[in-house]
Amino acid sequence: MIVIGIDPGIARVGYGVIEKQERLIRPLCYGCIETSSHERTTSHRLHEIYTRIQVLFAEHSPDEIAVEELFFTKNVTSAIRVAEVRGVILLAAEERGVEVVEYTPNQIKLAVSGSGRAKKEQVQDMVRRLLKLEEIPRPDDAADGLAIALCHINTLR
Amino acid sequence: MIVIGIDPGIARVGYGVIEKQERLIRPLCYGCIETSSHERTTSHRLHEIYTRIQVLFAEHSPDEIAVEELFFTKNVTSAIRVAEVRGVILLAAEERGVEVVEYTPNQIKLAVSGSGRAKKEQVQDMVRRLLKLEEIPRPDDAADGLAIALCHINTLR
Repeated sequence: MIVIGIDPGIARVGYGVIEKQERLIRPLCYGCIETSSHERTTSHRLHEIYTRIQVLFAEHSPDEIAVEELFFTKNVTSAIRVAEVRGVILLAAEERGVEVVEYTPNQIKLAVSGSGRAKKEQVQDMVRRLLKLEEIPRPDDAADGLAIALCHINTLR
Repeated sequence: MIVIGIDPGIARVGYGVIEKQERLIRPLCYGCIETSSHERTTSHRLHEIYTRIQVLFAEHSPDEIAVEELFFTKNVTSAIRVAEVRGVILLAAEERGVEVVEYTPNQIKLAVSGSGRAKKEQVQDMVRRLLKLEEIPRPDDAADGLAIALCHINTLR
């Protein structure tokens, strides 16, 4: 099965695509969709993210999609912008008929590193080790996308 | 010109379509897109809202779209669900190349009733009077959609 993990944001959407065959897992692709605040409206940025997410889904035909859940934050304005991005990602998934599962940041840290309080660097290093990568995936958002996909795969077991 | 005002929500999206010709304004249509929490996922509800908003835009070919802005709230979870809906509405507008303008609740109250502290009933009654309707539009969400469209038209003057 193929799982895509997505870390949504208006400036950067991190993603990681992982294939699981029985007990074997391997990363197929990871990266980051970036949009710039300088030239365009929020609507345009959402449209760009939506279009590129559609291409990502079409290229990899995921069986399931895992997305980081926003459940509490001090910065409401920022949370709202992230939620608008989540909206278009959930829409793109529904259009393909693929289920989306949501995980909190603590669930992701716990599933990947064994501790809900792990630091970002620890989680990233566990992503590298679990996927047998030579280096920590860059940018951070791509590593986060892979961590979310790994969290979902570990939760399935 | 034709303006559509939209009050987003995951359970109910209120809308009002108003035509402005020089100094004359008239309501073309108003209503509410409802989705139920009982049977479906958030993704499915977002997809339903997106599809019906696309039909609304196709039917009325708006020149501009006005949406209520969420800028602060005590209930972050609820704000996040509303923002996901805003995301798919902004996407549908961008796909038609129509600009979206956002107004805060206070701006809407002020533009329609003359006071940013007006009560809901006062705003709804002003909507009725400005549009020369016999009764206050129902449901409330439809009246809110019309109020947002009126706010945008008044701001343009």
